[in-house]
Amino acid sequence: MDIEFREGISEVIATTRNDRPNAAPIGIIHRKILYAVLYKESHTFSNVKKNSQLVANFVLDPRLYVRTAFEDLDASFFRSDQEAPVLQAAYAWVEFRCSIAEKLTQKSAVVHLNPIKSVVLRQPMIPNNRAFCALIEATIHATRYHKFKDQKYLGLALRYESIVRKCGGAEELEAFQLLKKYLR
Amino acid sequence: MDIEFREGISEVIATTRNDRPNAAPIGIIHRKILYAVLYKESHTFSNVKKNSQLVANFVLDPRLYVRTAFEDLDASFFRSDQEAPVLQAAYAWVEFRCSIAEKLTQKSAVVHLNPIKSVVLRQPMIPNNRAFCALIEATIHATRYHKFKDQKYLGLALRYESIVRKCGGAEELEAFQLLKKYLR
Repeated sequence: MDIEFREGISEVIATTRNDRPNAAPIGIIHRKILYAVLYKESHTFSNVKKNSQLVANFVLDPRLYVRTAFEDLDASFFRSDQEAPVLQAAYAWVEFRCSIAEKLTQKSAVVHLNPIKSVVLRQPMIPNNRAFCALIEATIHATRYHKFKDQKYLGLALRYESIVRKCGGAEELEAFQLLKKYLR
Repeated sequence: MDIEFREGISEVIATTRNDRPNAAPIGIIHRKILYAVLYKESHTFSNVKKNSQLVANFVLDPRLYVRTAFEDLDASFFRSDQEAPVLQAAYAWVEFRCSIAEKLTQKSAVVHLNPIKSVVLRQPMIPNNRAFCALIEATIHATRYHKFKDQKYLGLALRYESIVRKCGGAEELEAFQLLKKYLR
């Protein structure tokens, strides 16, 4: 595989399929083995449970992380030339065959990820941008706020706006405006 | 140029040369033009002032961001096969010719960056890792703490440890331990 999941957690947009494709940000965990921890209530988990397939999309557009965290993408966002569900915006992707190590007493399930195909369309040489990172952090807090309605998470999410404004480009600024819209 | 500096600020390790090479993390700013804002007291700035040369190193090792923020690297960290100062750890680099738009009343100077050479050795396909981002943030706060001795910055730096522990690999954990050593 050309694609490296470093030790720790890599943030990607997972796509899965049922009658229609679904996309949502998840973390791919590499600690000796590759796996993800998925909320059992999520579309991602119910799709994985149904057909054992998950694609990790590598995406540079920060707006897509925000959108997929909060809403469903329509079919036009997905490639029509692939059997697996793949985002148009993905510059690379890895398709996994999944096996669920479900723990019925918990709200989340461990899903083991076995890579069966990886595709690299472009190899962007892009150094670290603090605004992109800040958007990922803000989106994580925002989804917690959305779920638990705790003001603490709202404050944590909004705290990242200054980094996005200082270090981001137009896409990051637009993504943060979108995030604030979902937080209303 | 194969290498893309997206709109906003990209975090890299800058190398410059005087009698000996120097390395320090800086942000490369792309807002219509490419430039950096450098502290006039820094080695990076005095070297740029002397010979108008700066290399942006793309580095994946988080420990190097921490080390170069706080101490000088010895010569063994630099490539011996390059005229310009380049880190051994760089998977790609861009050499710039610099022109200083110095403002004498301020502590920082604007340095315009004109790319004259770019080299891509490897094209790592690595998705976003929150721990790597957290380390960059923690290092920025740590250097402020080091400079201004304000406890606020110490608190801000240490706040990132939980993300590093949760999302990082061995290199990120080691880098954070190193950071804490510099904070003592």
